[in-house]
Amino acid sequence: MSAQKEYAVGIDIGGTTTKFGIVDRKGNILAQDRIPSNAHEVVEDFIDDLHAKLLPMIDKVGGTENFIGIGMGAPNGNFYSGTIEYAPNLKWKGIIPIADLMTKKFGLTTKLTNDANAAAMGEMIYGCTKTIKHFITITLGTGVGSGIVIDGKIVLGHDGFAGELGHTIIRPGGRLHKSTHMRGSLEAYASATGVRETAIELLTEHPEEESLLRNYSINELTSETVYECAMQGDNIANRIFEFTGQILGESLANFIMFSSPEAIVLFGGLTKAGELLMKPTRRYMEANLLPIFQNKVKLIFSELKEADAAILGASALVWDIPPVIR
Amino acid sequence: MSAQKEYAVGIDIGGTTTKFGIVDRKGNILAQDRIPSNAHEVVEDFIDDLHAKLLPMIDKVGGTENFIGIGMGAPNGNFYSGTIEYAPNLKWKGIIPIADLMTKKFGLTTKLTNDANAAAMGEMIYGCTKTIKHFITITLGTGVGSGIVIDGKIVLGHDGFAGELGHTIIRPGGRLHKSTHMRGSLEAYASATGVRETAIELLTEHPEEESLLRNYSINELTSETVYECAMQGDNIANRIFEFTGQILGESLANFIMFSSPEAIVLFGGLTKAGELLMKPTRRYMEANLLPIFQNKVKLIFSELKEADAAILGASALVWDIPPVIR
Repeated sequence: MSAQKEYAVGIDIGGTTTKFGIVDRKGNILAQDRIPSNAHEVVEDFIDDLHAKLLPMIDKVGGTENFIGIGMGAPNGNFYSGTIEYAPNLKWKGIIPIADLMTKKFGLTTKLTNDANAAAMGEMIYGCTKTIKHFITITLGTGVGSGIVIDGKIVLGHDGFAGELGHTIIRPGGRLHKSTHMRGSLEAYASATGVRETAIELLTEHPEEESLLRNYSINELTSETVYECAMQGDNIANRIFEFTGQILGESLANFIMFSSPEAIVLFGGLTKAGELLMKPTRRYMEANLLPIFQNKVKLIFSELKEADAAILGASALVWDIPPVIR
Repeated sequence: MSAQKEYAVGIDIGGTTTKFGIVDRKGNILAQDRIPSNAHEVVEDFIDDLHAKLLPMIDKVGGTENFIGIGMGAPNGNFYSGTIEYAPNLKWKGIIPIADLMTKKFGLTTKLTNDANAAAMGEMIYGCTKTIKHFITITLGTGVGSGIVIDGKIVLGHDGFAGELGHTIIRPGGRLHKSTHMRGSLEAYASATGVRETAIELLTEHPEEESLLRNYSINELTSETVYECAMQGDNIANRIFEFTGQILGESLANFIMFSSPEAIVLFGGLTKAGELLMKPTRRYMEANLLPIFQNKVKLIFSELKEADAAILGASALVWDIPPVIR
């Protein structure tokens, strides 16, 4: 019997930063680092940079022969083809065969999926849904990402692009999304960007109403400042979270009536708002469900650190554990 | 080797009529009949009536020993438990263990799922999605039903109730649904009932505008009369289908961004409107998709007769073919 390979590389390519690490079978991250995602004109230079940073980490645990492979999460990453396709936030345009390029550079099998699916994988294998086979993860960050798990498997769809729940329309004809140019999508409201826009809207629509938020310049108005003001009892700040929770809760109700998950796991920067966001989300979610779905779905915050979840989830693509992706 | 069982019973319990038939392995319906769904105070009497009608059909092809079992589709039918749970349109209230009761009465294994899933099974095995592993069926009848197939399997969710797409909200705060009391659900618009309501709304909102629809009494205003008037060039009647297609198309876009199916198959009475409904539906569907999903999804009408699809799909629950339901 040949020795089991003990390690995997997990890489999470985000719109701004690429995080990567060495992961063992138990989900320990033994080493990690990061590079900017958009500092390289061509993807080959990006891969060279990754290789220069990762090689010492790999050698420190005995070299590539101890590695089962590399797992990557990236925006618009396609599991079937191993390509990143037309990712709006990345510098490399068109279709990028990144899995093949990585395999050639590192001499290790490389598997790819989109960043939100990678987070869902991390949650399933190392997080709070270890015993749950039907769940949805929603990442509330700069944008809104999602990973859908049905019967223990990530839903990829016929072309690998399933699970773009942030772009579903919840307010037809509503707020314009600045990069997709769609109107009324979940992401236009329930993201850090969306919370900021709601703040600007409410402050300009109610010029007569006092608010701590008026002490901040328009550039300082972020989901964090809104949170701080809400915690101090500011009325407008509280209404911003109420409204965000309403939009998110209504959307979650629609998702539940699609796949009837046992749990929905919330990730990402906005979840720092805790109960301020959770309470209205849960209330509007339940109010928009048919009775057969009510009071059944666990709505929870992820227990994993966000950066860890992405690295762990990406690495999980290459472990030879029961199939969790098709 | 024991002889293969050659036949199955397929039963489709609808809100008004229960249709049933004897099906062979090739999908031929050898005999069929129907009884009213709500003429029996207790479910045992309903089963007795079914048994009286089915027994001669079963005996004609050699008796129960030639049968593999009974498959049933019913509103709120749960595959996991074999029970009909709180079906709003049926007379029997609460949780009805109909699969067990049928098994005892007929001496044949009985499997149950909801009516829309049964239609999706029929489509998958005998219809236009035989070679397609990722699709969604939408039944546009008195209500709006749906069956979701991912990787060749019906999506049931953790509790068996997945796929209630007719109850997803597409116009928050919009039209009141008379039986669910939800506002703005797909079913409130894109059903025969919804088309009738849209007709009444448009006729009362524009009292000055001439329309052939004004020749009908309010009771005669049905999706069929709207269709007939639209075909004669009536402006209001055409706008009714345009609006119905808009709502349906927007909803389909949301569903596509969830599971990225290769096809969406439309069933049911409203599909008789043909291109009058299909054109706006397709236009609004494409307009509300992210570019990575555009011009990819086949939007088609089912080629199966509606009654046949339901009976065939129900019967498919018991065939020992590759697993199509979990």
